[in-house]
Amino acid sequence: MSKVRVGIINVTGYIGVELARLLHRHPNVILTSVTGRSAVGKGLGEVFPHLRDVDLTIKPDLDEVDFVFAALPHGESAAAVVPVLERGVKVVDVSADFRLTDAVEYERWYELAHPAPKYLKEAVYGLVELNRDRIRSARLVANPGCYPTSAILALAPAVKEGLIEPDIIVDSKSGVSGAGRGLSLTTHYSEVNENVCAYALNGHRHLPEIAQELRRLAGGSALSVTFVPHLIPMTRGILSTCYARLKVGKVTQAEKGREEVRRLYQDFYDGEHFVKVVAAPPQTKQTWGSNLCLLYPTVDLRTGRLIVISCIDNLVKGGAGQAVQNMNLMLGFPETAGLEGTPIHP
Amino acid sequence: MSKVRVGIINVTGYIGVELARLLHRHPNVILTSVTGRSAVGKGLGEVFPHLRDVDLTIKPDLDEVDFVFAALPHGESAAAVVPVLERGVKVVDVSADFRLTDAVEYERWYELAHPAPKYLKEAVYGLVELNRDRIRSARLVANPGCYPTSAILALAPAVKEGLIEPDIIVDSKSGVSGAGRGLSLTTHYSEVNENVCAYALNGHRHLPEIAQELRRLAGGSALSVTFVPHLIPMTRGILSTCYARLKVGKVTQAEKGREEVRRLYQDFYDGEHFVKVVAAPPQTKQTWGSNLCLLYPTVDLRTGRLIVISCIDNLVKGGAGQAVQNMNLMLGFPETAGLEGTPIHP
Amino acid sequence: MSKVRVGIINVTGYIGVELARLLHRHPNVILTSVTGRSAVGKGLGEVFPHLRDVDLTIKPDLDEVDFVFAALPHGESAAAVVPVLERGVKVVDVSADFRLTDAVEYERWYELAHPAPKYLKEAVYGLVELNRDRIRSARLVANPGCYPTSAILALAPAVKEGLIEPDIIVDSKSGVSGAGRGLSLTTHYSEVNENVCAYALNGHRHLPEIAQELRRLAGGSALSVTFVPHLIPMTRGILSTCYARLKVGKVTQAEKGREEVRRLYQDFYDGEHFVKVVAAPPQTKQTWGSNLCLLYPTVDLRTGRLIVISCIDNLVKGGAGQAVQNMNLMLGFPETAGLEGTPIHP
Amino acid sequence: MSKVRVGIINVTGYIGVELARLLHRHPNVILTSVTGRSAVGKGLGEVFPHLRDVDLTIKPDLDEVDFVFAALPHGESAAAVVPVLERGVKVVDVSADFRLTDAVEYERWYELAHPAPKYLKEAVYGLVELNRDRIRSARLVANPGCYPTSAILALAPAVKEGLIEPDIIVDSKSGVSGAGRGLSLTTHYSEVNENVCAYALNGHRHLPEIAQELRRLAGGSALSVTFVPHLIPMTRGILSTCYARLKVGKVTQAEKGREEVRRLYQDFYDGEHFVKVVAAPPQTKQTWGSNLCLLYPTVDLRTGRLIVISCIDNLVKGGAGQAVQNMNLMLGFPETAGLEGTPIHP
Repeated sequence: MSKVRVGIINVTGYIGVELARLLHRHPNVILTSVTGRSAVGKGLGEVFPHLRDVDLTIKPDLDEVDFVFAALPHGESAAAVVPVLERGVKVVDVSADFRLTDAVEYERWYELAHPAPKYLKEAVYGLVELNRDRIRSARLVANPGCYPTSAILALAPAVKEGLIEPDIIVDSKSGVSGAGRGLSLTTHYSEVNENVCAYALNGHRHLPEIAQELRRLAGGSALSVTFVPHLIPMTRGILSTCYARLKVGKVTQAEKGREEVRRLYQDFYDGEHFVKVVAAPPQTKQTWGSNLCLLYPTVDLRTGRLIVISCIDNLVKGGAGQAVQNMNLMLGFPETAGLEGTPIHP
Repeated sequence: MSKVRVGIINVTGYIGVELARLLHRHPNVILTSVTGRSAVGKGLGEVFPHLRDVDLTIKPDLDEVDFVFAALPHGESAAAVVPVLERGVKVVDVSADFRLTDAVEYERWYELAHPAPKYLKEAVYGLVELNRDRIRSARLVANPGCYPTSAILALAPAVKEGLIEPDIIVDSKSGVSGAGRGLSLTTHYSEVNENVCAYALNGHRHLPEIAQELRRLAGGSALSVTFVPHLIPMTRGILSTCYARLKVGKVTQAEKGREEVRRLYQDFYDGEHFVKVVAAPPQTKQTWGSNLCLLYPTVDLRTGRLIVISCIDNLVKGGAGQAVQNMNLMLGFPETAGLEGTPIHP
Repeated sequence: MSKVRVGIINVTGYIGVELARLLHRHPNVILTSVTGRSAVGKGLGEVFPHLRDVDLTIKPDLDEVDFVFAALPHGESAAAVVPVLERGVKVVDVSADFRLTDAVEYERWYELAHPAPKYLKEAVYGLVELNRDRIRSARLVANPGCYPTSAILALAPAVKEGLIEPDIIVDSKSGVSGAGRGLSLTTHYSEVNENVCAYALNGHRHLPEIAQELRRLAGGSALSVTFVPHLIPMTRGILSTCYARLKVGKVTQAEKGREEVRRLYQDFYDGEHFVKVVAAPPQTKQTWGSNLCLLYPTVDLRTGRLIVISCIDNLVKGGAGQAVQNMNLMLGFPETAGLEGTPIHP
Repeated sequence: MSKVRVGIINVTGYIGVELARLLHRHPNVILTSVTGRSAVGKGLGEVFPHLRDVDLTIKPDLDEVDFVFAALPHGESAAAVVPVLERGVKVVDVSADFRLTDAVEYERWYELAHPAPKYLKEAVYGLVELNRDRIRSARLVANPGCYPTSAILALAPAVKEGLIEPDIIVDSKSGVSGAGRGLSLTTHYSEVNENVCAYALNGHRHLPEIAQELRRLAGGSALSVTFVPHLIPMTRGILSTCYARLKVGKVTQAEKGREEVRRLYQDFYDGEHFVKVVAAPPQTKQTWGSNLCLLYPTVDLRTGRLIVISCIDNLVKGGAGQAVQNMNLMLGFPETAGLEGTPIHP
C-alpha cells in the first residue's frame, strides 16, 4: 500500500520539528512537504541538523498532500487551515485555534476575533483517551495544549466518576521548550538556569481549555479551577500536581481508600497504550521522548484530599506525539504507529 | 571589642559549609572550631576548596567557644547540644530536633524517642520575623526547616489576620542541595538532571512543623494543611506556591482585592530587612546566595483563592543564613550582620 | 524467520539499560534474558520505569540465548564472557577487558592480571567504520570506550593518510552519564551542576586504547598522545577537540586547505551511515539519543594545525548503539537495524 | 574620609550588573550613577530584582562622578570613554577597545577603525598580577577579556621563565553568561541545555589579546597560539586547559618534574591574593562568585608536555571583579577591597 503523503505547515517551531522527527520514521506515511515562515529555501537538515536524514526543503507553501499538520501561532493557524479543509484534506491543528468551542471565550482569552468560527463546532478536541470515537471520524482535530493534556488526563477519572468537589487546583511544572523556539529573556539560558518561577498568575490561556474539558466530563456542571504554571530549568517535561477535595463518602478514609482510587483510575484507563496508572510517584524523565502519560493518584489521608501527579513529555504527548496519535485514528492506522519509542534514560 | 568565638558541630554538610562561609566574613564573630563525623584531621579548605581562606582543621570535638551551631542529623543533634547548653553556651540547632514542641509528635514523625525532651519547652522556633523577641532572650533556638521557612512566611499574614479558610495547600519546588551532601540515586546527577518529581506524598517531616507554626498564628485553632514537595534540577532555591480559599467578605472580589492583600502583607512585614513583598512574581534566582525571602500574594479572582508565591535560597534563609540571623539576635548584634550580601545574578 | 534470542549480562548500568532500550525495538532480535548484580528478582520495568514495556525479570544468571552482551566492570566481564564463548555463543563485551591487545599493557592500566589472555588475540576492536570485515567474522568483539570512539574516528583519516605529525592532543568534554550509575561525590548533582573539571591528568585508562588504535592506523609507527577528559554538567554527549600539527606540504596553507582536509575526511567516511563529516562545527545535542558521530575537521591557518571536532552520544555510538552495530555485523543483519532513530531535539 | 563616587556606563549587561553588585558593598566607594542603552528611566532594582537594595535610576547619561567603569560594546565604549578621560576622570574600560595596543590589529579583528587610537599607547592592560605597577599610575585601564584572563594567568610563568616551546594550545570551556545578556538562538535555553559546542574556529577575538600578552611576557619573541573556545551548559565559569611542549632540559622528566613546575608557578604567584596554585585539578565551582583564579600546572610525563588548568568565574575575575581590582589600585585602596567574598558552594 502506498504511503500517505503528509505536510507540516510551519515546521520551524519545536512542535514542528518534533513532528518531522516522528513522521520521518512513521511506517504508514511519508513526510513530503514542509513550510516555514523563516528559513524558506533552506534544507530542513541545514536549519535543524538533527533532521539531516529528512531530505526536504522548507517552502513558503505546501505541496499537494493527503494530510496536514498546522503548527502556526494561534490566529494564523485557523486562517491557514480553512483552505486545506476546503480542498478535502484532513487536518490536525496543533495551535489553540480550534480548542475552545466558544468563539466568545476564544476572543476573551486570545484577544482577537476567531478567524473561522464556523469550524468550531466541527473541530474535535484531540485528547484521544477521552474522545477516541469522535476523532476517528473527524476531519479537523484540535490538538490539546501541553498543560491541558497533563491536567485533564490527571483529573478525568475523578471528575467523570463524581469523586471530587468541583474545586480544583492544578500546579504545573514545565520544561522550557514549552515556551517555544522564539527568543525572549525568559528563555535566555543564563536567566532560566538554576531558577524557578510561577507565571501567568492572572490566568494562563490553557486554563479555559482545562475548564471546558473538565466541565464536559462533569456533564456540564460548573467547576472552579485554579491553574498555576511554573517554569523549571529543564528542556522537556511537564509534571502537574492536581488537588481536589474528595466528596464525603466516596472513598474510604484510610490506606484502603488509596487503593480504591488507584483501581478506579486503572479501570478508567484500562487498555490504554499511552496512559499508565503507576504505583509510585512518577518522574517526567520516565516519559522523556515518548508519548506516555504517567498518572499517580493518591489520597492525603490527613485532609481527605485527592492528589494526582501526572507526567508527560510536553513535546510528545503534550504536542507532536499526540498529534500523530490523532492522525493515526483519523487515517485508520494502528493508534501506536510511529509512537512505539521507549523513553530515553538517563 | 574582641570577637565572639563560634563553633560548628558537624561542618561537613551543605548547611555546615554555608555557615562557615557566612561566619568567616561576619564582622562580630570568629569561627574558631569545627567538627565533623568524616574528614577529621583534614583542613577545612582541603575538603572544601571554596573555604581555602578559612584556616581550620576538622576535629572530632569542639574547642572552647562562646556560641555553637549544631548541624548534626536529627537525634544526634539533640544529644550533642545538651552538654553545650549545660556549659552555659548558647546554641542554634539547625537540625529538626527542637522544632516540634511536642515530644509525641516528634516521635511519630522521626521514629525515635526524643533525646532531650526537657528542652523542648525552652527551645524557641527561630523564624525571626515571627518570634524576634523570644529569640533575643533564648539560649536554644531551633532553626526552621527550609520548606517551613518558605511556607510559614508565605502564609503568616493571611493566617494571623484571619483572611483564609483553615484549609491550605503548599506546593513546593526545591533545588537538590536540600537533600544534602549524602549520596543517593535520587541525587545522582544523571537521574536528577532534566527531571522533576514529587516526593514524600505520604507526609514529609516538614509538614508537622508547618502545621504547628500556622496553628500558633491562628491562635491555636485547627488547620488542615496539604504539603507536597518536589525536586527540580537546580542546586539552590525553594519556590513555594501556597493556596487557600479567602474567607467571604474579607477581601474585595476584584482587582482592588489584590491590592488589599498586598498591602496587608506589606504592613505585616513592614521594616523587615530580609522579607520583601514584591510587585511581580518572584524567582528563586532573585534570592540566590542571599538571606532574602521574596513574597508575592495575589488573588485568583475567578475562584476567590489566595495564592502566595515565596522564594528563598534554601541554604541561606532556609538554613545557614537564618541561623546566623538568629545568632545575631541572641548575641545582640545587628540583625543583618554578616548577611548583607546581595543575591548573585545571573 | 524466527528472531535471535539475546541476553545482557549485567543490565543494571547505564550501558545495560540503553542496550535493553535499543534491543527491545530491534527488528531481528528478541531480548529474552537479563542479569544483574543488584536488583535480582525484580522486574526490569520496576527498577527502570522507562523500560516498563520490556517484560523481563532480572536474574542472577543468563537463560539460554543465541547472542550475549557483557556489561560487567572490567576484570569481571572477561571472566563471565569465557564460558559463554565456550558454549559457542558470540559476544560483544562492552567492558574494557578485550580492548587492549597486550596483556602487559592491560595489567599496567587496570592493575590486575588479565583473566583470559588467550582471547586477546582473537577479540576484534569493535569500531565498525575501521574494522568492519574483521567484525563480521568475529565471535568476540571488544566494544570501544566512549572517549576512544570519539577520538579515533576524529583522527583516523588524518593518521591513516599521513597528514599529521605523530604528536596529538585530545581534549574531551563528557556528560556525566559516562561516569556510570554508581554513586560518588563526583557525580552528586549539587557538586556537578554549574561546574566543569578536568580529571585523570596522570593518565586515563582510555589513553592506551586511543594510542593503540591510532598506532595501528599509522602502520605501527610510534605516536605521542596527550588525552585530557573533562566532566561537564550534562547527562549525555562527548565532544572531543583534537589537535595535531599538519605535516609540511600535505595541505595548502590557505582557505583551500580546509576544503582539502574536509574532502579527505568525506572520502574516508564515504558511504558510512553513522559517521558524518559536517560543514559547520557540530554540537553533541545533534547526536542526542542516536548512533551518529559528527566530525568537523578544519585547519588553524595561523599555526598550520589540524583541529578536528567530534560529537557522539556517549551511551549510544560511545556504548550501547555501537554494540548493537557490532552485533548486526556479527549476525549478518543490516548494519543499521534497530539504530535508525533520529537524534532528539531539543 | 568621604567615599569616592563611581559611575557605570551601560550597567544593563551581565558585567554591568555584576559591577553594581560588587560596588554596592565596596567599603571605599559609592555607586552614584548608572546609564543604560535600554531601560532608561527605570529603577535598577526594577529591571534587576537582585539589585533591589541599590537605589539608583538608569539614566541616559552619567552624573558627575570621580571614577568610571565603561561597559559598552566595543567601538561604542572607546567613544564614550574619551570625554570622561578628558574631564580628568579615571576609567576602567571593560570592553575590548583598549586591549590591543595596535590599531591595525584592532581593525583586523573588530572590523572597524579604532575610535580613539591616540589612547592605545596610554591604556594599560589590566591583568593586575602582571602589570600591577603600571596600573597604579594609569588613568585608563583596559580590563582583560574573560578567556585571556584565564589563559594568560595559566601560561605566564611558563612563558616568562622560558619553560616551553613557543607553540601553545588553549582549549577553553565557558559558561553561557560569557555570551552576554543579548538574545540569540545560541543562548536560548532549550538549545544550550544538555549540549556542548566549539565555536569561533576561524579565530576568536580574544586570540590576538592572548597572543599579544604572551608575546610581551616572552620578551617580544614570536609565539604560535591556537585558541578554541567551547560553550558548556552552565551560567558562570571558565576552565582553560593549556598545552605546550616543555623545552628540553628545563624540567626533570619524572614525577619530580611536576613538583619543579608547581614550585615555579607558586613562586611566580607568591603572595598573590587572587591567584592560587593548587595541588589538585581545580573546578570552576571552586571560584564561583569570587575573584579567584585557580591554577594547576602539571606535566604529561609520557609526552613531555606541560598542561595547565585554570579556573575563574568569568563575570568576576574574568570581568567585574578584575575591574574592581584595577580600580582599587588606581585609587590607592587595598587591592582586595570589596572582593573578599568567598566562593559559594554548592
